[in-house]
Parts: sequence; C-alpha cells; structure tokens
Amino acid sequence: MYHAPLKDIQFVFRHLIDRATLAEKMDHEALSDDLSDAIFDEAAKFAADIIAPTNAGGDKGSTRLDDGSVATPPGFKAAYAAMGEAGWTAMDASEEYGGQAMPMAVSAFVNEMWQAANMSFALCHLLTQGQIYALEKYASPDHKAQFIQPMVEGRWTGTMNLTEPQAGTDLAAIRSMAIPEGDHYRISGQKIYITYGEHDMAENIVHLLLARTPDAPAGHKGISVFLVPKFLINPDGSLGGRNDVKCVSIEKKLGIKGSPTAVLQYGDNGGAVGYLVGELNKGLEIMFAMMNHARFMVGLQGLAISERAYQQAVSYAMDRKQGTPLGGTEGDAIIGHPDVLRLMASMRSDIMAMRSLLGIGAAAMDLATHDGGQAHQDRLGLLVPIIKGWLTELSLEITSQAIQVHGGMGFIEETGAAQHYRDARILPIYEGTTAIQANDLVFRKTLRDGGASVMALLDDITADMNAITPEHDVQIATMAARVIHATDNARHAIQHLLAAANSPRKAAASGHHFVMMMGMLTGGWQMVRGAAIARKQSLTEGADVSFLSTRWTLADVFITQRMPQVDALAETIMKGDEAVLAIATDMLAVQ
Amino acid sequence: MYHAPLKDIQFVFRHLIDRATLAEKMDHEALSDDLSDAIFDEAAKFAADIIAPTNAGGDKGSTRLDDGSVATPPGFKAAYAAMGEAGWTAMDASEEYGGQAMPMAVSAFVNEMWQAANMSFALCHLLTQGQIYALEKYASPDHKAQFIQPMVEGRWTGTMNLTEPQAGTDLAAIRSMAIPEGDHYRISGQKIYITYGEHDMAENIVHLLLARTPDAPAGHKGISVFLVPKFLINPDGSLGGRNDVKCVSIEKKLGIKGSPTAVLQYGDNGGAVGYLVGELNKGLEIMFAMMNHARFMVGLQGLAISERAYQQAVSYAMDRKQGTPLGGTEGDAIIGHPDVLRLMASMRSDIMAMRSLLGIGAAAMDLATHDGGQAHQDRLGLLVPIIKGWLTELSLEITSQAIQVHGGMGFIEETGAAQHYRDARILPIYEGTTAIQANDLVFRKTLRDGGASVMALLDDITADMNAITPEHDVQIATMAARVIHATDNARHAIQHLLAAANSPRKAAASGHHFVMMMGMLTGGWQMVRGAAIARKQSLTEGADVSFLSTRWTLADVFITQRMPQVDALAETIMKGDEAVLAIATDMLAVQ
Repeated sequence: MYHAPLKDIQFVFRHLIDRATLAEKMDHEALSDDLSDAIFDEAAKFAADIIAPTNAGGDKGSTRLDDGSVATPPGFKAAYAAMGEAGWTAMDASEEYGGQAMPMAVSAFVNEMWQAANMSFALCHLLTQGQIYALEKYASPDHKAQFIQPMVEGRWTGTMNLTEPQAGTDLAAIRSMAIPEGDHYRISGQKIYITYGEHDMAENIVHLLLARTPDAPAGHKGISVFLVPKFLINPDGSLGGRNDVKCVSIEKKLGIKGSPTAVLQYGDNGGAVGYLVGELNKGLEIMFAMMNHARFMVGLQGLAISERAYQQAVSYAMDRKQGTPLGGTEGDAIIGHPDVLRLMASMRSDIMAMRSLLGIGAAAMDLATHDGGQAHQDRLGLLVPIIKGWLTELSLEITSQAIQVHGGMGFIEETGAAQHYRDARILPIYEGTTAIQANDLVFRKTLRDGGASVMALLDDITADMNAITPEHDVQIATMAARVIHATDNARHAIQHLLAAANSPRKAAASGHHFVMMMGMLTGGWQMVRGAAIARKQSLTEGADVSFLSTRWTLADVFITQRMPQVDALAETIMKGDEAVLAIATDMLAVQ
Repeated sequence: MYHAPLKDIQFVFRHLIDRATLAEKMDHEALSDDLSDAIFDEAAKFAADIIAPTNAGGDKGSTRLDDGSVATPPGFKAAYAAMGEAGWTAMDASEEYGGQAMPMAVSAFVNEMWQAANMSFALCHLLTQGQIYALEKYASPDHKAQFIQPMVEGRWTGTMNLTEPQAGTDLAAIRSMAIPEGDHYRISGQKIYITYGEHDMAENIVHLLLARTPDAPAGHKGISVFLVPKFLINPDGSLGGRNDVKCVSIEKKLGIKGSPTAVLQYGDNGGAVGYLVGELNKGLEIMFAMMNHARFMVGLQGLAISERAYQQAVSYAMDRKQGTPLGGTEGDAIIGHPDVLRLMASMRSDIMAMRSLLGIGAAAMDLATHDGGQAHQDRLGLLVPIIKGWLTELSLEITSQAIQVHGGMGFIEETGAAQHYRDARILPIYEGTTAIQANDLVFRKTLRDGGASVMALLDDITADMNAITPEHDVQIATMAARVIHATDNARHAIQHLLAAANSPRKAAASGHHFVMMMGMLTGGWQMVRGAAIARKQSLTEGADVSFLSTRWTLADVFITQRMPQVDALAETIMKGDEAVLAIATDMLAVQ
C-alpha cells in the first residue's frame, strides 16, 4: 500500500520552489498549477495501482536462468510496459525524440512516486533516464536518432557499466578494452554490479560502458565511453543478432532484490560491437557531467524509501493496540504512546525536510540547465552532494525507525518493514559513497572557491530567517532564531575547514560530518521557510488549515531535534579532526 | 573469522572494574589475574575455533520439518555439545547444581565472545542461563534438583514463553490458561516469538511460560509462571513421553536466522503438563526479577555484534586497495583514506566505550547480588536500561558503518557484513524495546526517587573527572573537562525531566533521548577514566605502551565525537518535548 503524499508535494512545488524565476527561464506548461496537479494526480494513481503492488513480490528477487537470461519478478514486465504505454517513460527526454522535456521541478516528484512504489523496479527507469540524458548531450546525431526514441517509448532500457573488480570508487583503474574496427569498436572485459544489466522487461538493453583503447594514456585520462547494445541494430532500426556480451551471474544482495545486479562478460567471441560516445579519452568528463543528475536521483530514492517506510509504520501505529497509552484510554492505538508519537513525528518531519530540500535541488537543476549562470551552477554543485549524502544516510535511520515502531513484527520479513530497511542500505553506497560526496563538498565545492559558494548559501539562509520576525509570528520566529544560531556555528566550522586548506587530510576527515551538518541546516532552513509560508497561507480563504498546520507543527519538531545536532557536528568538525588523524593503523588492529 | 579482543577485555577487567571491592563481597578465584587470564584465553580459543566457524552457515537458517521438529544449521548441534563437554554451559550456575558460580564481571566477557562468534547460536545458551537464574531463585527444591543440572551440563536447554499475538510489550493481555490437576497444571494456548522454542541441539527443552489460572484476577496481577518440559521427566530423571506442546511454525526473519523463532501450540490434546514456579499470580514479579539479567545480556549482544562487524570491516580496510589515499602512496590500503580512518576510529572508540560500560555494569550486578545494599541496587537499576538501550541502538550504527567500509561489496550477502547488520536489528526490540528501557529509566529509575540515584551517578562522574587535572596530563584533563561540561548539561536536562514529574507524557516523550544521552555520557566517563589509567600504566616497567596508547588516543575520538551529542540531546530533552506532544494523530496521516 502506497499513497503519494500529494498535499505535501503540492506544497513544496507551489510554495517552496521559486516557480516565477523558473518560468522565466523555461516556459513549460507543466509549471502551471493546473497541469502540475493533473500530472501529480495521474502519477499518484499509476504508482499506487500499477507499480506499488509489485513491491513485496519483487523482494523474492530476479532469477538468472541457465541460458544467461534473467527473469524479473512477477509483474515487473507488465508494469514497465504499462509505464511506456502511458507515456511515463517519455517525461524527461527532449520533444525531438518523442519526450516531454518536463522540468525537473515537476518530474522529481513523479520520480519520487515511482521510487516509493517499488524502488528495485523503478531503478531500471532511473538508469534509462540517465542514459537518455547522456546520449542527448554527447552522442552523435545518428546514435541519438537510433537509440533514444526506443528508450523514450519504454521498449529498450539503458545501463551504466562502470565498475570492474579492481575499479570501484577509483575508475582510473578500469581495464576493459575497446579495439577500433571500421566505424565501431570491439569491446572485451568484465563489468560487475551492473544494475538491470540483463532482464526481460525490454526488447533491447543499451549498455553505456567505460573502457580503454589500445593506445590510450594510463589512468583516468585514457578512458572512453561506448554504447554497446545487447542486440545489434539493423540499418532500418530493427533488431539484428545478439552482441558479444553475456550475463555470467547475478548477485545475491541484502536488498533491492528485484533489481538484477549482473556480472557482464564482454568479448568472449571476438569482442562486442560498441560505438564511441563523445570524444576519445573524455570518458570520465562525460561521466562527471552526468553525475549531478545521477546523484540527485539517488538522493531522491532516499526520500522515496523513507516515505514508503513511514507510510507502513504510521498505518501500523494507528491500528495496533498494545497497552493503554499514558493519559489515554483502553483500546487506544500505540500512536498514543509518547515514544511512538516521537518516532512518527521525527520521521515525518525529517521526510518533509528531505522533500523540501529535494524540491529546491530540482529547481536548482532546472535553473542550472536553462540559465547556466555561475551562481546557479554553484548552488546546484553544493546541493547535490548534500542531497545525495544526507538524504541517503537519513533513509537508513528512518527505515530503521519504521521497523522499531512495529516491535517484534518489524523483524519478521512478512511484515514488509524489513524490506525497506534492506533496500535503503545501498543508497549511501552507489553513485558515489557518502565519503565521495563528502570529498566533493569539501574540496571541489568549498575549498576550491575559498568558501564563496557555501558562504553565499549560509547568507541566504540567514537572510531568509532574519525576515521572519516575532511581529509576524512568535513561534516561527523562535525557530528562525534557532536556525540562525546553528548557521553561525556552521560558519565557524566552515572557517575551520578553510583554514585547513593546506592540510587536506584534516579537511577530508571532517567531510562526512560536514555533509550531515549541511543537510540538517538546509533542511531546517526549508522547514522554517515552509512553516512561515504555511502560516501565511492558512489565513487565506478556503485554506486547508488542517494540512498547513502540520507544516509548522512538524517544523518545530525538526528544529528542536536537528538544530542541536548541527551545533554538535560543527563542534566535532572544529575539534575532532586531529583526534581521528592521530589514530595510527596499528591502533585499529584487533588486540 | 573472529579473534577475541583479549587486551581490551583484560584492560577493562583489571583496571576499570573495582576488583578490590568485588573480591571483598565475593571471594571467587576467577577474580584473580591468573585465573581470569586463563579463562579468557581458553574462551577465546573456543569462540574462534568451535563457534565462529558456524556463523556464516547459520545465516541459511533453521528448518522446520513436517513432523514439527526443527533442524538447526550445520555445526550448531556439535558446537553446543562441545560447549557442554568443555564445561562452558556451567559457568553461571551455583556449585550446588554443578555450576561454577562465576562472577558476572568475568562471565560477561566470556559471553561477549560467544555472542560475537555466533549470535544466533549463542542465543540458546543465553536463554538457558536466564532460566537457570530464574529457577535457582524461584523454583521449589524438587524442581531445582530435577531441571537445573541437565541444563548446566548442556544436555537440556531453556526458553522463555511470554509473547502471545495480542500480548507483546503489554504482558497483562496474556490469555494462555493453566488448569490445576493434582500436583501440576494443564496448559493450553499459543505462544509466539519463542526463541529456540524447538530445535535439535538438546535432549529436552524446558519452557518457562506465563499463563493464567481459571480464577486469577484480570490484568497483570493474575499471571503465573510455569515450567513445561518438551519431554516429561520420569521420577528417576530419565525422559518420559512427549508433552502436549508442538511447534506449529517458525518465523522467516530479517536476521539471527540460525536461531529458530517458534510458534508453540499448547494443549491440543488435553493440555501440556506444567509446574508452578514461585507463588501463584506473582508471574510478572518473577519476570521482573529476571529482567536485569536478561536486558544486560542483550546489551552485551549489542557490544558483541559490533565487535564482530568491526573486525570484519577493519580487516577489509587494511587489505583492500582503491585509489591512492591523500598524503599516501600508490598501493596503500583504503584505511589510509581519512574518511575510512574516521569510520574505523569511530567504531573502535564506540566499542571500547561499550565494553567499558558493560564491565562496570557486570561488576554492579555482582555487587547488587552479593552485597545487596540499596546504593548498589540503585546503580545497577540505572545502568541496565542504559546498557540495553544504548548498546543495542549503537550496534545498528556500527554494523551499518561496517557495511559502508566495504562499499558495494558490503551489499553482497556473500561478504558477510550484511549479516551482522541484519542480525543486530533485533537487539533494540527484544527483551523490551528501547522505548521500554526509556520508560524504565525515566519513571522507575529517575522520577520515582526524585532523581537521587541519577544525580549520584552524575556526581561520581564529575568527581572522577575533577580528579584528572592538567598537572597530571594536559590532553586527558581536556577530555575530562569536556565530560564535566556535558555532565552539567545532562544535569539540566534531568532537572527538566524532574520538573515534568506531573506531566508524564512530557517525560515519556524525552525518554529515548535520555537513554542515549546517558549512554554517551557514561561511555565518555569510562573512556576518560580508562585514558588516565592507561597513561599511568604506560609508565610502569614492561608496559604494553602500544596497546595502552590506543586507549587514550581513541578516548579523544570518543570525546570529540560524542560529547557534543550529549549536549545536543540535553537541549532536545529541554526544548523538544512540547513540540512532539503538539503533534495530533491526524497530522501524521499521509496527505
């Protein structure tokens, strides 16, 4: 059971995102109230009726058969076909290739629904979107014409082939080989952890693969990107023979079991036919350009799985009876127990903060694409590692709390809460671990410009908070003051990082704390903005006061629980780096 | 692979525990340096060689066969037999029944090794210990003579039968029925979540069960405890016919899959023969008396699974190569990356704090048993919910960090890191959820005596920290000062709770934060005590400076990471309770 949280999505979309500026830069009708409502409503139905019912069954996993094919769980194939038929696979692509060129500010919330409904299923679409994004930007006109439209129509899907056994976080160590032959290359090598590398949901699978050419420079400057379809494509666009790539195994994983994670072997029979994408040896640059999108989408998965876990937990908490709550009456559900209330309130306020930040990030991505000014690029550059890092780490906490609410039932697989906990665990790992996000935020996004971008963000937070005065609203002004206090502490912590610019190991040792601190701080900023807007909205005629009041009431929960943690992390950043670096490796040996 | 952390165990046992006072109260030779060393060494070998190899295979789970019997995973049966033969099952029982009456201050560390080696296996022994403890205290002389010795010898095992579908946390809702018949009762009803309720590791299984008699008062005052053996016992002690209890199913769980969790059906054929333990209708009091022991042991499991996960992660981090660490050289292992170092240092410092606190708790349990003075009872009463609550919640974090260190490999089940993460998830749930620990700490242990016990604990912390002055050691005095600052904040938070004595919902809303705050604070106290002692020890002739320096270096990591969180939780306790209670249930509905 999943119901899209439409009121909250609408609130973030209408009130937290700066739609006026967005509409100036991209004139898309989906930014209107009416069309966005219609899209969200339809997507909510599709997510609830078509996708969500496949989630629990999907946990039984995909199966690799003896012939190397992979059978996805019951219902996956039909649901993907339905997505294509309903046009949902066309949302992000350009109109030129049959797409709808939807603003991210809209499609992010639709994607939240897909990922919440069934994360292991929706991952296939997520990767296909990423590939469309890459091909539109870097592929030749011929390849665009050939490959994009079938993916837009939901007939083909896309994958990313990066990792090799010795090359995970460090892509410079890639060894897969591409040997030129006429207008194409012959690819050989082994790729691991390939999500939807083989499956039965599409007519064809298009692999986007990193490899070296024979005379490429060593290291990260000698890596190129190739398109390698599972089935070759005839000149008329029909499918030809099978390419020289096969799935040799799929992994037995902790979670997202419905999503097959393949080991792909290329070139056992002379080399798989592959086509160069972009320039030779520019592979990592191309990957890098796709990264904002990919990492944002994984942060989005963190929100989505948290919402799904929350919905299951709150439904249980409102139904289950166990003991009479303090101050309650016999027969009251466990939501009446103060600690269950605390858990649920904490989960819901965290999720609102996550969604708010995601909305801001989606709008920043649209602005960075359609305006391109440096300030928009910089803001997006800051938000992406925060969204990827914080939202995914937080999803571990929230899916764990959802188990806790269930008591012993939560530990039984049949209940379903454990699946979310297992599924979420991949999120702080793939598309760059939290440590990679931390390095990105510290070095590329903060130290490189001497802290200018991040200080500009803190200034925006302070300005927004200063605009909320006790004359407007005493309760919300108190929250705003607490955010300003936390912002001041964060500023000191960042100054400490900047002062460590010449001791990169010190800065790196605090990177994780920095990401978490910025996540909570920007979450607090948006929660208080939202609270103030909700209060103002509540005074308008016909306002949905019942919903709007949740925005300011839960903001208070967020601020009282999370702002003290911002202060704590700021202190650890300032005082804890040397303690970590004082640890010699032999102190960590078991003794 | 598991190696008992003998040096750290020895350090806590010799230096943090007040062995002199302990030896005054209980003259047991295991408290000596020589014998304790010998016990720890032998246990370490047994854990590594006999128990640990069964852990990964145990994750495949126990299997219920058609005849209602349950087959445990390969090696479990042999390992349990070996434990009995080596005398390890006899450690805790009185000498009268063939036991060794070992101080908890010693046996706790041996139990840590069993639980770290294979938690799902060692759970059987843990429950059997609990039952021996209960029977020694409450059973009639005849029942003691009949039931205890076979368990001490490892031939029989024990279970706890509390939960029913409608009665989990709320035991007052129990419906199982016991009808008197001669010298025994006839038991009927269904019990769920019965750990090792059926298995093939013992000749007989003794169920300790909560039920009502026909004319018992309603609610919690009408519950009694019964002994119900799987096989009836002949007057000569040999096994008779099968009793009327059967395993109707076992649960498919997130973790501890080796440990069968049974649904037991009693009385389908006229009622199972059961024997009253203790007085009629005093069942919950008896359970309550066992609780300190049971909850302490689950906290111990939190330490153990954390240590096991840490060992796997540190071994990977010292071996795996991926990218050249900042300031390192090509070919360095990933432990050289500052964020991996941070993760490992944080895990190890947390684990040292957990073990230190566990040692203090074990000694407190011995003193409470063998001295019985109110101050000892009160101190133990405080420490138990902190140890159960904080150590188990922290184990979720540490087993998660252990996955993170592995990157993508951590998500693949074959690696083994995911098993610890799944196994640990039961710990904050069983033997009383963290919310139950929180209620215990807030209401019974703090508000009931007007805060006297907890303030006495804070005074001890402050006194110990004040004794460490810069004249002794500047670095450690800085840590001590930071603990004092945190203690002051904790004192304010507790005063806030005391002031809320008439608003129990407010106090209850902060209970979880209170447990976590006290865990980190008492952990910091013991880490700084340990640092000061280690520094002093390091000056003695032949001192193991290499190990001792880890104690003060990791103390600094703990203090800089965890003391700011004590402050943060203190603030949330003081300012966040009303925000939570302002949440109306309908604000939590999905909309």
